[in-house]
Amino acid sequence: MSATGREDAVRFGRVAVIGVGLIGGSFALALKQAKACAHIVGFGRDPRNMRLALEHGVVDAVAASIAEAARGADLILVATPVAQYPAVFAALSPALGKETLVTDAGSTKRDVVAAARAGLAGRLAQFVPAHPIAGAELSGVAAAKADLFSGKKVVLTPLTESAPQAVARVAAAWQACGARIHRMSPEEHDQVFAAVSHLPHLLAFALVHELAGRENSSQLFGYAAGGFRDFTRIASSHPEMWRDICVANRDALLVELQHFMQELDAVRAMLAAGDGAGLEALFGAARDARNRWLNGEFEG
Amino acid sequence: MSATGREDAVRFGRVAVIGVGLIGGSFALALKQAKACAHIVGFGRDPRNMRLALEHGVVDAVAASIAEAARGADLILVATPVAQYPAVFAALSPALGKETLVTDAGSTKRDVVAAARAGLAGRLAQFVPAHPIAGAELSGVAAAKADLFSGKKVVLTPLTESAPQAVARVAAAWQACGARIHRMSPEEHDQVFAAVSHLPHLLAFALVHELAGRENSSQLFGYAAGGFRDFTRIASSHPEMWRDICVANRDALLVELQHFMQELDAVRAMLAAGDGAGLEALFGAARDARNRWLNGEFEG
Repeated sequence: MSATGREDAVRFGRVAVIGVGLIGGSFALALKQAKACAHIVGFGRDPRNMRLALEHGVVDAVAASIAEAARGADLILVATPVAQYPAVFAALSPALGKETLVTDAGSTKRDVVAAARAGLAGRLAQFVPAHPIAGAELSGVAAAKADLFSGKKVVLTPLTESAPQAVARVAAAWQACGARIHRMSPEEHDQVFAAVSHLPHLLAFALVHELAGRENSSQLFGYAAGGFRDFTRIASSHPEMWRDICVANRDALLVELQHFMQELDAVRAMLAAGDGAGLEALFGAARDARNRWLNGEFEG
Repeated sequence: MSATGREDAVRFGRVAVIGVGLIGGSFALALKQAKACAHIVGFGRDPRNMRLALEHGVVDAVAASIAEAARGADLILVATPVAQYPAVFAALSPALGKETLVTDAGSTKRDVVAAARAGLAGRLAQFVPAHPIAGAELSGVAAAKADLFSGKKVVLTPLTESAPQAVARVAAAWQACGARIHRMSPEEHDQVFAAVSHLPHLLAFALVHELAGRENSSQLFGYAAGGFRDFTRIASSHPEMWRDICVANRDALLVELQHFMQELDAVRAMLAAGDGAGLEALFGAARDARNRWLNGEFEG
């Protein structure tokens, strides 16, 4: 099976996935499909979810602890909600071998880097933070799929301490999952994703929450249709995961929220004045920008 | 062809569609597919679009004026942006036969009723306002399809003057298109749709517009992904149509915008305080409400 032209592809022996949900599970499936690893061990806090991960062949074994999962691993993916990283890193650190590489899948990066500096001190050369720009409003290992990262971006935000060969091998692992590699600083990353991901999630959650609290909420939802369904899809996302993202990135998110509320003030003034021309110009500029985006004009 | 079990189905001879875009064109295609009419004539202001409507068999003929389209019609659908209704009704009124029924597809209803009272005076018994809860971010006759209304709600907001048999026949026409009929007052309609449709459109337009105006907008759009795509889908909607809706329903929409901005103030306070528990509770309540909606718990 080695004579398939894959000799030059990245190969790992033992891979450990900490947090086997949508992202961790998809990473495991993608590596298996690419034949990029020999054995995958998973660790997770929910025994039912881990049983499912084993039954579905997402992982080959389930570890009883983070340290047990890490021991002997060539590559470790941390894919828990980001608030758990300090505890995860603290448990990982003493179990890491000299060659073990660590990456993650957190949607925020400044807090992840800070947690690594605190919890992986002395091992920072082996750590390469990553954020796969792929996901779904679904969560749990049952939603995992081998092609989740196929054609999607993965943003690496290496530390100055990250060893170049560690960055290269972690990049190759994500590429084996089908992803395209981008690089940014943690600060730039968190600002960009506050604007194009974290804020939209916050707005979708807020709109649904506000309507759900109305006396006539049943009537309102009864007439909600396709536009509402797509606008609010991300409001079905994992509450704990998004709590952690919003808290971790709250300063950048507050800036974005402020920008947006100023925009809403301007829109409100146009509405109050019955300024049809102003509204049409705004709507037209938005449609034009979105359609240029759909046409791939902003692809990096 | 009449012995197909459709003898009891609604039948119209000549149907006129004023404004042959996504909605008007789909209405025409659906009636044809249901064999519910003999002949469809269309009128529209864009000659290229009307040529397309004729070429695609959406309409059987193109009229040179609204009056010409209306003459001899059994049923007329007005499906232009709502700001054009006063002019459309003024042109329709003298050309209406005693038995001609008029319905519409406007997304707002108080302004439509007011325009009808001004422009269709003496003919109000023949008019039954309607709002099909179906659409897409696409516009123009090229996007029209026979099943657009299939299984979708159509809200009728009859006037006190609307004749009961007119309401029944207009309802039957929409049912022939596959729609399920609901009834509301124009006031209730406009409040409900300000909340679940007009506000989300406004927010999506506003978010894309705000990001498009940034210095680093190319970078931001370059990292926008699936969540952003769905959240902003409705920001690709027709600017003129949405200008008219927002202006026509601006008092109800301003109330909804105010509710939402208060919600955002509360969310901002939680973020600023790092109130993870509060955010998680809000996100969880939103996800729960949305998932109950997806499960059909609010279906009327």
